[in-house]
Amino acid sequence: IHVSNVSAALIGKAGHRHFMLKEIFEQPQVIGDTINAFVSASTGAIALPDLPFDPAKVPRLTIVACGTAYYVAMVAKYWFEQVARLPVDVDIGSEFRYRDTPFEAGGVAIFVSQSGETLDTLEALRHAKRAGQHIVSIVNVPESTIARESDRVLYTLAGPEIGVASTKAFTTQLTVMACLVLAFARARGTISHEREAELALALREVPARAAEVLRHDDAIQALAGVVAESRDALYLGRGTAYPIALEGALKLKEISYIHAEGYAAGEMKHGPISLIDDGVPVIALAPSDALFEKVVSNIQEVAARSGRVLLISDADGVARLGSKVRWSIELPKVDPFVAPILYSLPVQLLAYHTAVAKGTDVDQPRNLAKSVTVE
Amino acid sequence: IHVSNVSAALIGKAGHRHFMLKEIFEQPQVIGDTINAFVSASTGAIALPDLPFDPAKVPRLTIVACGTAYYVAMVAKYWFEQVARLPVDVDIGSEFRYRDTPFEAGGVAIFVSQSGETLDTLEALRHAKRAGQHIVSIVNVPESTIARESDRVLYTLAGPEIGVASTKAFTTQLTVMACLVLAFARARGTISHEREAELALALREVPARAAEVLRHDDAIQALAGVVAESRDALYLGRGTAYPIALEGALKLKEISYIHAEGYAAGEMKHGPISLIDDGVPVIALAPSDALFEKVVSNIQEVAARSGRVLLISDADGVARLGSKVRWSIELPKVDPFVAPILYSLPVQLLAYHTAVAKGTDVDQPRNLAKSVTVE
Repeated sequence: IHVSNVSAALIGKAGHRHFMLKEIFEQPQVIGDTINAFVSASTGAIALPDLPFDPAKVPRLTIVACGTAYYVAMVAKYWFEQVARLPVDVDIGSEFRYRDTPFEAGGVAIFVSQSGETLDTLEALRHAKRAGQHIVSIVNVPESTIARESDRVLYTLAGPEIGVASTKAFTTQLTVMACLVLAFARARGTISHEREAELALALREVPARAAEVLRHDDAIQALAGVVAESRDALYLGRGTAYPIALEGALKLKEISYIHAEGYAAGEMKHGPISLIDDGVPVIALAPSDALFEKVVSNIQEVAARSGRVLLISDADGVARLGSKVRWSIELPKVDPFVAPILYSLPVQLLAYHTAVAKGTDVDQPRNLAKSVTVE
Repeated sequence: IHVSNVSAALIGKAGHRHFMLKEIFEQPQVIGDTINAFVSASTGAIALPDLPFDPAKVPRLTIVACGTAYYVAMVAKYWFEQVARLPVDVDIGSEFRYRDTPFEAGGVAIFVSQSGETLDTLEALRHAKRAGQHIVSIVNVPESTIARESDRVLYTLAGPEIGVASTKAFTTQLTVMACLVLAFARARGTISHEREAELALALREVPARAAEVLRHDDAIQALAGVVAESRDALYLGRGTAYPIALEGALKLKEISYIHAEGYAAGEMKHGPISLIDDGVPVIALAPSDALFEKVVSNIQEVAARSGRVLLISDADGVARLGSKVRWSIELPKVDPFVAPILYSLPVQLLAYHTAVAKGTDVDQPRNLAKSVTVE
């Protein structure tokens, strides 16, 4: 497969110890590049290339991906449903292709893959295509099979991603989805011009906010020393922070081999809270949005059972809860719409520094391949 | 809340060491009772009470639940989509109620709760009701709030469930769903009379097959000694076995405090396989159905990384793979439609015996309540 025609050796680590860290720090740049490809320089509005269907007439979206990219699909479900009032089905590639789902005529199916070669995602694409769905893909590698077989491709401009654990591909996939959501919302008349301008502005400011988030690198490195001593970790969030909790857990699991698991914060009391003791750090992703007070209850339940909580929130959230948790990291306050993009960064850094503290092979974790071209 | 007007002391453990074990062994009986309430004695066909809508005209189903009951919803999604050709949205209560999902006119929403008092599920029900959806619930406690607020209630006849970890409520919820799927499929003309009769027969035979499965109690108890020494465990499955893998992991986690996690077998290579070493038992739920050969590949990937696999399959599956895994349990061969009900039993027994081997409080695990009436 063609991952890229630029070799890793040629690209180099630009002074970073690992490709993963280099790629984490490239995010302000590549998120900005990706947004710029979709933003009209004159108006600041999101302008996508023409789509081979009318977004106003789409009855239903299907979004399919594997691994990290599946969490992008989960965030997109929240976004499309809330902002564009369009019902969305999400599924992982290996299940979707055999699930025999009933398709709606005129439906659109979106496939997300960094390499554009992920076999389960590609076969899911072919399955949806045979069922007459319009095929849109979000990929990072232009000459890839998924790109070639799609009706329309939206590219992430992440550049070559060498680290096996995806970082900048993930956040640029989210970025493309956010642009697509705004384009759909406008076409469907579900958003006012004012609100659309607000969200486009929030999106254009993500690169600057992401650069601020990366300044917490040292603080996160210090916390990683604690996480590195744990056998288990839990990540919690509500709404769009829930898929980011899943992503944070996957990242830690992939490269540090710590058994991390993500949960919707409201599900803790239905089982997983029995795992909690003072040996299991709990990472709570909680921007101070409409769901914040609900997460506060869930965090208090964990704290009451001697769980040690790392709160990742903004100034309001830290002011409200900081005294009740063991550690906190304060991110910039942003529109809740773009929060999942920004909240991805601290969990990437936490996974990275934890793996370094444990001495595992960060860029080439055991048992994993960068592009999964088998079932 | 009224969990039951029969006290636990009055009911007793019927010679079993714990309520959970008693409830596991009641399953052939209560699954049979539940089926009988929906089966026409004269024809053997599934006959549901009248529904306040025409299943042939329902555009879309929404199924919402929390914890274990959510995995029932996940199985139901596969069933409704494949057998009744009806698209299904599933969600957990705590997310659904705040997700602001677009509803379709004439849609039906199903809520699943043992106690009928689960607060997140109840609030999700009220949310869907305000949006004009027809409300169906599947509950075990007749006088419960969810039952009272539904347009139609379908009861599980599980009897009082005392153990905090749900067992017979789970399998009877699956049983009611299976009946509902057949009723929808007939009304929608998506199933032949012949196939409907086959599936109804397979369903009526579940109690007898369940009794056979329970004869593996001693073998599973022996394996539990191994699992009890592990810090982590993974459960794998594809298709309807995937939610049962999630349920098996939740059960083990709840009562033994071992960090178990369930995965769609095809997702392993996208991250979690990095956790695998010889200290992490992998429980593979793999009936020899159309997906079996795909699971074989996933099991071989695990075995190649020194993972110790417990295969739960039928005679064909064990013959095909038994020599390649460390342990296997042979369940009766059944129609794939009813397999998720039967495959629930060995994972319940494994969780139970593991917890007993670890000496944890099986019926009252730490931090957990039987009925969750807070957010």
